[in-house]
Amino acid sequence: MRRKLRMGMVGGGRDAFIGAVHRIAAFMDGEIEMVCGALSSNIEKARQSGEDLHLSPERIYGSYEEMVTREKELPADQRMDFVSIVTPNHLHFGPAKMAMENGFHVVLDKPATFTLEEAKTLKKVIEDTGALFCLTHTYTGYPMVKEARQVIASGKLGNIRKIYVEYPQGWLTNFREGSNYKQAAWRTDPKRSGISGCMGDIGTHAFNMAEYVSGHSVIAMCADMNIVVPGRLLDDDGSVLLKFNNGVSGFLFATQVAAGEENNIKIRVYGDKAGLEWKQEDANSLLLKWLEEPTQILRAGNPYLSSYSRAGTRTPAGHPEGYLEAFANIYRNFAYTLGAKLEGKRPEPEWTDFPGIEEGIRGMAFIENVVRSAASEMKWQPFEV
Amino acid sequence: MRRKLRMGMVGGGRDAFIGAVHRIAAFMDGEIEMVCGALSSNIEKARQSGEDLHLSPERIYGSYEEMVTREKELPADQRMDFVSIVTPNHLHFGPAKMAMENGFHVVLDKPATFTLEEAKTLKKVIEDTGALFCLTHTYTGYPMVKEARQVIASGKLGNIRKIYVEYPQGWLTNFREGSNYKQAAWRTDPKRSGISGCMGDIGTHAFNMAEYVSGHSVIAMCADMNIVVPGRLLDDDGSVLLKFNNGVSGFLFATQVAAGEENNIKIRVYGDKAGLEWKQEDANSLLLKWLEEPTQILRAGNPYLSSYSRAGTRTPAGHPEGYLEAFANIYRNFAYTLGAKLEGKRPEPEWTDFPGIEEGIRGMAFIENVVRSAASEMKWQPFEV
Amino acid sequence: MRRKLRMGMVGGGRDAFIGAVHRIAAFMDGEIEMVCGALSSNIEKARQSGEDLHLSPERIYGSYEEMVTREKELPADQRMDFVSIVTPNHLHFGPAKMAMENGFHVVLDKPATFTLEEAKTLKKVIEDTGALFCLTHTYTGYPMVKEARQVIASGKLGNIRKIYVEYPQGWLTNFREGSNYKQAAWRTDPKRSGISGCMGDIGTHAFNMAEYVSGHSVIAMCADMNIVVPGRLLDDDGSVLLKFNNGVSGFLFATQVAAGEENNIKIRVYGDKAGLEWKQEDANSLLLKWLEEPTQILRAGNPYLSSYSRAGTRTPAGHPEGYLEAFANIYRNFAYTLGAKLEGKRPEPEWTDFPGIEEGIRGMAFIENVVRSAASEMKWQPFEV
Amino acid sequence: MRRKLRMGMVGGGRDAFIGAVHRIAAFMDGEIEMVCGALSSNIEKARQSGEDLHLSPERIYGSYEEMVTREKELPADQRMDFVSIVTPNHLHFGPAKMAMENGFHVVLDKPATFTLEEAKTLKKVIEDTGALFCLTHTYTGYPMVKEARQVIASGKLGNIRKIYVEYPQGWLTNFREGSNYKQAAWRTDPKRSGISGCMGDIGTHAFNMAEYVSGHSVIAMCADMNIVVPGRLLDDDGSVLLKFNNGVSGFLFATQVAAGEENNIKIRVYGDKAGLEWKQEDANSLLLKWLEEPTQILRAGNPYLSSYSRAGTRTPAGHPEGYLEAFANIYRNFAYTLGAKLEGKRPEPEWTDFPGIEEGIRGMAFIENVVRSAASEMKWQPFEV
Repeated sequence: MRRKLRMGMVGGGRDAFIGAVHRIAAFMDGEIEMVCGALSSNIEKARQSGEDLHLSPERIYGSYEEMVTREKELPADQRMDFVSIVTPNHLHFGPAKMAMENGFHVVLDKPATFTLEEAKTLKKVIEDTGALFCLTHTYTGYPMVKEARQVIASGKLGNIRKIYVEYPQGWLTNFREGSNYKQAAWRTDPKRSGISGCMGDIGTHAFNMAEYVSGHSVIAMCADMNIVVPGRLLDDDGSVLLKFNNGVSGFLFATQVAAGEENNIKIRVYGDKAGLEWKQEDANSLLLKWLEEPTQILRAGNPYLSSYSRAGTRTPAGHPEGYLEAFANIYRNFAYTLGAKLEGKRPEPEWTDFPGIEEGIRGMAFIENVVRSAASEMKWQPFEV
Repeated sequence: MRRKLRMGMVGGGRDAFIGAVHRIAAFMDGEIEMVCGALSSNIEKARQSGEDLHLSPERIYGSYEEMVTREKELPADQRMDFVSIVTPNHLHFGPAKMAMENGFHVVLDKPATFTLEEAKTLKKVIEDTGALFCLTHTYTGYPMVKEARQVIASGKLGNIRKIYVEYPQGWLTNFREGSNYKQAAWRTDPKRSGISGCMGDIGTHAFNMAEYVSGHSVIAMCADMNIVVPGRLLDDDGSVLLKFNNGVSGFLFATQVAAGEENNIKIRVYGDKAGLEWKQEDANSLLLKWLEEPTQILRAGNPYLSSYSRAGTRTPAGHPEGYLEAFANIYRNFAYTLGAKLEGKRPEPEWTDFPGIEEGIRGMAFIENVVRSAASEMKWQPFEV
Repeated sequence: MRRKLRMGMVGGGRDAFIGAVHRIAAFMDGEIEMVCGALSSNIEKARQSGEDLHLSPERIYGSYEEMVTREKELPADQRMDFVSIVTPNHLHFGPAKMAMENGFHVVLDKPATFTLEEAKTLKKVIEDTGALFCLTHTYTGYPMVKEARQVIASGKLGNIRKIYVEYPQGWLTNFREGSNYKQAAWRTDPKRSGISGCMGDIGTHAFNMAEYVSGHSVIAMCADMNIVVPGRLLDDDGSVLLKFNNGVSGFLFATQVAAGEENNIKIRVYGDKAGLEWKQEDANSLLLKWLEEPTQILRAGNPYLSSYSRAGTRTPAGHPEGYLEAFANIYRNFAYTLGAKLEGKRPEPEWTDFPGIEEGIRGMAFIENVVRSAASEMKWQPFEV
Repeated sequence: MRRKLRMGMVGGGRDAFIGAVHRIAAFMDGEIEMVCGALSSNIEKARQSGEDLHLSPERIYGSYEEMVTREKELPADQRMDFVSIVTPNHLHFGPAKMAMENGFHVVLDKPATFTLEEAKTLKKVIEDTGALFCLTHTYTGYPMVKEARQVIASGKLGNIRKIYVEYPQGWLTNFREGSNYKQAAWRTDPKRSGISGCMGDIGTHAFNMAEYVSGHSVIAMCADMNIVVPGRLLDDDGSVLLKFNNGVSGFLFATQVAAGEENNIKIRVYGDKAGLEWKQEDANSLLLKWLEEPTQILRAGNPYLSSYSRAGTRTPAGHPEGYLEAFANIYRNFAYTLGAKLEGKRPEPEWTDFPGIEEGIRGMAFIENVVRSAASEMKWQPFEV
């Protein structure tokens, strides 16, 4: 009997947002079961949350340290295979490091860590332990984002020239930190989020999208960051001029004060033969804009797509898949790759298409660079990692 | 420890389309585990399919009869709670009846049965056994379809006047029955599908959508049905003029030969104060078209929606959910309702918002009425159940 | 000096809707000047309206009879070349016939006449007088509608199978006839509109669109017509199942009680290789939906379009043109063809792409057939002209 | 008899793009007639072009100097009222100045002049002569752009915070200057266009849009300008971070090398209560995005719009109007205002809603500032006029 992979979770108790998303993503394809959790630092809440999730009482732990230690003591055919870490940013590094050093693989919510330095250390831990590591930059899990990357890699757009990426949200239009709103509270708190709010939370997604889709790397930037809402402690808005390698230029904007916007991350890339456009609000479509021919609408689930895109859908064309399936694609690819690793097999190339520590390091570098650039009076700052 | 509900599955082996969808829908929310299956009449395929799904070898059965019989013999804390039946139409009635008569609850793919008569018999079995029964008309599981129903029920559109529903697909544009294409083969085969192809397969979805959203019932129809592709044995196309109660009129069209269309079921309803529009290609939006005010775009996941709609999303506004989540809403509502039933509690009203045997009987009646109307030279045929 | 063509107008005084549209359409391209008018049966209103339009007082006439008689007496280099008739339906036949019999060409608003019989008589007058005659079915003036026709004529869709056309409006949702609303008053009045309201007013546009784009002819129909708003004297809603030649089927619906809808005429045609879709709300785009390749968005003004479409735009791609330009295309084509005729030259084929008396006769036949079908208890009625 | 206003034109001979657009815009509403022209510096081309336009041979002039001189000698009831100047940028100042100094009013294509200095001089000429002056920034002529301005002015969005404006085109993706392509030739030629290509041509439109709609003024900028296509002499691409008064920030991008893009200028503005979005590709709609209520789609031609917007449509809602009508709105407002001026009356406020010399000066200042900023190593440059 082939077995499911066994997952433990750090964070993600009652009321958490992203923990629930991770679980749906993990469960959807029937390849992963949740066997234990350190779901909250509040022991009573941890217990209730574990019960909600049908965990055995003895595998509901009070801390990640306890979880890692106790799971390690279990027989190999019972203990968890990997840890999914869904805590606020300041609590990423500790459990990730400890888990890997004790033989567990790791799925980690983004941004990778609290500081760039931590991310670099994690890379070393990964190299030393041989653990499989996955960073959940959700948006590159969409099948049509994968297709966008393949289209560009194939040269169909010609030489790339312009990259525009944007991520408007409106949920921080008002000051909500004072209210009983957990998401607003920690994401705007420098002690838990780090040196950036908006840029760290969603700017990193936009940055990752730009580099993943285009295959180009940012080499310099010029940032304008703002605290728009009085009293807020971290940026809630920013716009950044970008230079990429090969003479490509572009920009990135991310804001959380665009009233009425939901979550519409969007990317446009233009080459000398064609352009492409993808946005989350129409996630199952990818526009290919040809210079002298009609624009094409590529649609998820069709046979004419690349294997990377086709591997990312569960239903035929015309059955819309969304954010949760994009997230599940990351878990499924991680699970398939881990399964192959555990069986000593070579994973299919499509399975390895999930973000890892390199994306984590570049994301943390983005945060540090964008904050430095915003503080500078000079226009261009080289991108340093 | 709260437990997950235990599911067995009839049909849905390797290569099946809808079985895999049922499983994703069942697993997504972590409330249901699959414990057994009679996945194929081919015993070797059944075995392999069960292995794919991580089933214990002893609970991979060769037939539904065997499954029902053997599961019934298991201890109460191990045996399955309900059966999910995902076979072609001619194999719905048998397992559903036997399962309920042996104390199991049932989730059944649509259309309910092979004939209207069978559906009526099932209703009697349900009444006699007290089993909980669910019919998976996926599209009414979308949160914005639920919102559409609530908007109309609340009177916001005023008195309803017109109902237009359409369901264009293109996948049967060519004759594919002769090829090794399992979906095309059984859905166009009168021995397995019944007296109608297109109208039974997707016309029933459109019909269910029209009655669910509008709260009105069809009372007469005038149908034009066609076999467009030469050699095909069942209709692949149809258009139907409709009369509903309260003087409402409308139409329904469903076709599987609209080349280039994917799966874009769409409904429009107009009252004397406003109209509404929903289509699967933009499933997270519902348009409210006011007579003298700007059209509004209601979006899934927002606090301004009804409780029925809000109960159908897993993420905040702006995180698109799709077909699989709509399907999962049916499973989740079924699971919550069944859980309440098993604990002797009263389910929340939102949980009971899933299709049952009444929808099944009306769907089968639709098929029989539409076939009779299409064969008639007279214009209007009363809708008979 | 090349001269502009000289236009006289019958109807279209202050407060009229369609007269103003005709004038904008005629003036836009600088090829037509308005020299006279019989703008209202109310002499004072006629005078004021003429003044608004910068007409010379002596060429503001009290009736079309006076206008035709007096203009005929003017020197050839001063008198009008053609009459534009923009009165309600019951006042189409008289001025059109008299104008042509006195040597003037005619542009006539649709539907052609009050009865089918009148339209047939007009055809005879045209043949006898050699007058150039144009019927303003606006929507076939759109460049992307012309492209749709050319795409189908070229065989790109393969064998045509399905034609769906719809025309929803909401402006007659309430009873407005009693109010001081001129448009509502005459269009719902059998004495001025004829035997049909909605079907005569907009159903004829949808019918013309279906036949123009597809190149197919309706041969049978099954109609459901309704007076939805109590007290109204003519139909405000209708749905029609259609049979075309070559085994093509389809439907048409037109309604004026779809609350919140503006004027979104839409057509979809499917062949065995591809489908197409055009709607007025996105008038500069034409979707080509391929069976196994990505959908294409053809956009007005691009070099890849047919000469018929390119002749219908005034600006490069990306400068949206709309309803008035579509209308102007009819006037411009009429003017170019008339100019060629007056100079004894052969017009370019693209110029002759405007509706004439054949479309007028089929439109009137549509009205008579749809009314007869709606009154029948039998399903199919052959289309009789 | 009320008379039409008499227009002369400088530039706009055969093959010119924008001259033909000006004429359609001027003619559409029947308030303006063209009586003379200096259509080309090539005398034979000027003659042929004048003939195309039905001008009297004696009023086809060889130069603007001749036109102004000769027209001035004509009787007051024959000579032109105003000059429309549609030449390349380096030929704006001369004819505008001379026309006004000789008693003629002026409509001028954008950008106002070749240099900021010239624009300031023109302002003085306007003040000294009392001439009516109009600058054709087309895009603010759209009714839904006018509505956007009114919505913001009314305070519905609350305090403005972010302004994003973009203008992507793709027509200069390749080097086309060497070909026989007149538009590409002059717009990329520093001798005729001035110190900027893309920013002068379309960046100025985007800048004008941002200030017109938001009611805010740019006070500082940080620009990245590029010559993307090798061999080109002027910028074909640029992105600009912006600071506006009242602490508002935003950005503007304009590019002519976005392959596959047509002409989709778009603006988004966000306040603390709501945001709005308008784009030319859906020009008849304006999105109002509320913080906690459903997004509204405001549509042109509806009674719920402001008087400024309603004055900009010619047809009821649902009859799409486009670029040419937006352009015609500028001409019509100019003509109504000029008509009132000539009759000594006060124009309606809606009529005076067209761009003038202030917009011209700010546009030229934008060009000079953006070029200066792009050349600087410092981030922020104050906006100087």
